[in-house]
Amino acid sequence: IADRAQCAAVDLLDQTRLPESLTRCVCETLPQLHDAIRRLVVRGAPAIGIAAAYGVTLTPIESSDSLETARTKWIDAIEYLATSRPTAVNLFWALDRMRAIVESPESVSPELESMEATAKGASSVESLRVSLVAEAIRIHEDDRAMCRSIGRHGSGRLAECRNVLTHCNAGGLATSTFGTALAPIYYLHEHGKTLHVYADETRPLLQGARLTAWELAQAGVPVTVITDSMAGGLMRQGHVDAIIVGADRIAANGDAANKIGTYPLAVLAHYHRIPFYVAAPTNTFDLALASGDLIPIEQRDGEEVRCPGGPSGRTMVPENVDVINPAFDVTPAELITAIITERGVIESPNVDKIAAHCGSPIANEVG
Amino acid sequence: IADRAQCAAVDLLDQTRLPESLTRCVCETLPQLHDAIRRLVVRGAPAIGIAAAYGVTLTPIESSDSLETARTKWIDAIEYLATSRPTAVNLFWALDRMRAIVESPESVSPELESMEATAKGASSVESLRVSLVAEAIRIHEDDRAMCRSIGRHGSGRLAECRNVLTHCNAGGLATSTFGTALAPIYYLHEHGKTLHVYADETRPLLQGARLTAWELAQAGVPVTVITDSMAGGLMRQGHVDAIIVGADRIAANGDAANKIGTYPLAVLAHYHRIPFYVAAPTNTFDLALASGDLIPIEQRDGEEVRCPGGPSGRTMVPENVDVINPAFDVTPAELITAIITERGVIESPNVDKIAAHCGSPIANEVG
Repeated sequence: IADRAQCAAVDLLDQTRLPESLTRCVCETLPQLHDAIRRLVVRGAPAIGIAAAYGVTLTPIESSDSLETARTKWIDAIEYLATSRPTAVNLFWALDRMRAIVESPESVSPELESMEATAKGASSVESLRVSLVAEAIRIHEDDRAMCRSIGRHGSGRLAECRNVLTHCNAGGLATSTFGTALAPIYYLHEHGKTLHVYADETRPLLQGARLTAWELAQAGVPVTVITDSMAGGLMRQGHVDAIIVGADRIAANGDAANKIGTYPLAVLAHYHRIPFYVAAPTNTFDLALASGDLIPIEQRDGEEVRCPGGPSGRTMVPENVDVINPAFDVTPAELITAIITERGVIESPNVDKIAAHCGSPIANEVG
Repeated sequence: IADRAQCAAVDLLDQTRLPESLTRCVCETLPQLHDAIRRLVVRGAPAIGIAAAYGVTLTPIESSDSLETARTKWIDAIEYLATSRPTAVNLFWALDRMRAIVESPESVSPELESMEATAKGASSVESLRVSLVAEAIRIHEDDRAMCRSIGRHGSGRLAECRNVLTHCNAGGLATSTFGTALAPIYYLHEHGKTLHVYADETRPLLQGARLTAWELAQAGVPVTVITDSMAGGLMRQGHVDAIIVGADRIAANGDAANKIGTYPLAVLAHYHRIPFYVAAPTNTFDLALASGDLIPIEQRDGEEVRCPGGPSGRTMVPENVDVINPAFDVTPAELITAIITERGVIESPNVDKIAAHCGSPIANEVG
């Protein structure tokens, strides 16, 4: 994700084209960005939040717009972008931060104060626009710091492992940099301890095969891609020392929604007494939801199941046969060994520990 | 599988082309049939055995060949066909039946006796050839009867279910007709009780999406295809009443090798207290192997993992990244609720029960 001084566009790496092609997808309008999120051009809970925050700054504001008109347009844009995907809470968290700026222009940021000093006579609309850009950049920068901190906190848990299994992509491509689930692996790699990673291919959209494998290989971390169905057999053979995944939303009790196929891994880890870690920034917690049963689960187009080779590929399911395509499943807290956030590690997560963790002061390296 | 009176060819339905295209693959030579088994044109443990039995009759025998020369050629053909795939024991079982005919020509079958009566002066080579064809046909017919009997024995276990989950294809396409795992479902459907089936797509080669979905839909049984990663979530939601799968080889203690991805289903079934059934003819037992750890597991070409849409489809794994592709995994007996054979049901299978079952007289409707 690249930000522009002019905020004329949000510049994304088109993840649907990886690993064959490094193609940019430049979104100049709100519908383009909405579509990019919906089609998974940009995906991964934190990255969706960052993209949406920048997306708000694409709102077409006329120079003649009154402050009230401009605010309405920005709020409309926030509500429109919130409809792009339903499960990852980071999207709503980032949009809520942008909404707070729109609704409270009096909370002037340091950046805005200095910019205002050099921009005498700028209208209050223009001031607000500058504040929104500053907030989007701050969301982006905060994410970088959170990922690095997750890496540091998680590294102790994986330091003794040789083989770690992950699902989907919760790496640099899912965040600003470094990732969440992959952050401890990158952190250890930087510090001279390189693990071997088994990457579940992650049907239907193969983010593990296409994205996790690509970014780990780029970083020099050895990686082996397996079909999702192979993970259990590897665990039985003793080839998996730990499992680490990201999360799209975590309820107040620690139940975690993540890419479809995460829950069976947690059951398999439990059966084989393998630690199962969820790595996510604290903005992934949705403390308004008592349990994971309340997390809305996105149902995606069945074509993703019917055509494993992509939209132009061979249709593998007979036409007259139904498919289902839930994009996420929910792993109950009791199957999670620990949740790793930028603030530290929540061992055997439950409602009290999570409330205390989220209320605790943020770690030094963040904010 | 169609047999020809002349034994000039083995006529197979090319299962690699399903569900788009009903294409025949006619094998006129041993290498063609070997290749058809290796490429999964014909697949499914019982069907491989039947195809290989007919395949032996393709051995090129010259009219000038002595009995000894012809026998050597047939034995060579049997040994060659045995190298086509390593895991399914039915292949070796069927070839052993053919070998017994080659090596014991004095064990003249009733069919041969009647044919000999009308074929005065036929050479002993010709007699043996006729015996081999008769034996292949008998293997084929025995399989039909075994499948129907498995259907009957298994039907009681599924009669109270509404939703049954299966993996890979252990249906009519994997056998002569009716299948093994799908046999109880077809049996119940014939008797007015229609279940809904969840078919795991079964990566990498998608036999569930392509074959199980196709044949159940043809038969009028409602079926929904899911990615392999969705099965756990469905079980958690209470949408799966039982799991039934086939087997490629079962050790003396009841450990069962089946398509990769079967073992994690058994663990998930155990965790959710859902019955997990293995349906297979008794020729699937390999009593020479004490446990499943001794079952050889075929490792297949990584391209099957790299290209989910088939050989001409998009490559989803970066070139410099490794993949693995074990075709089977082993489910330990303690995770199997019951094994259903043509002779009956082995509850909580173990070495003693299996030995007794295999030594018991075969059920009336078979043989």
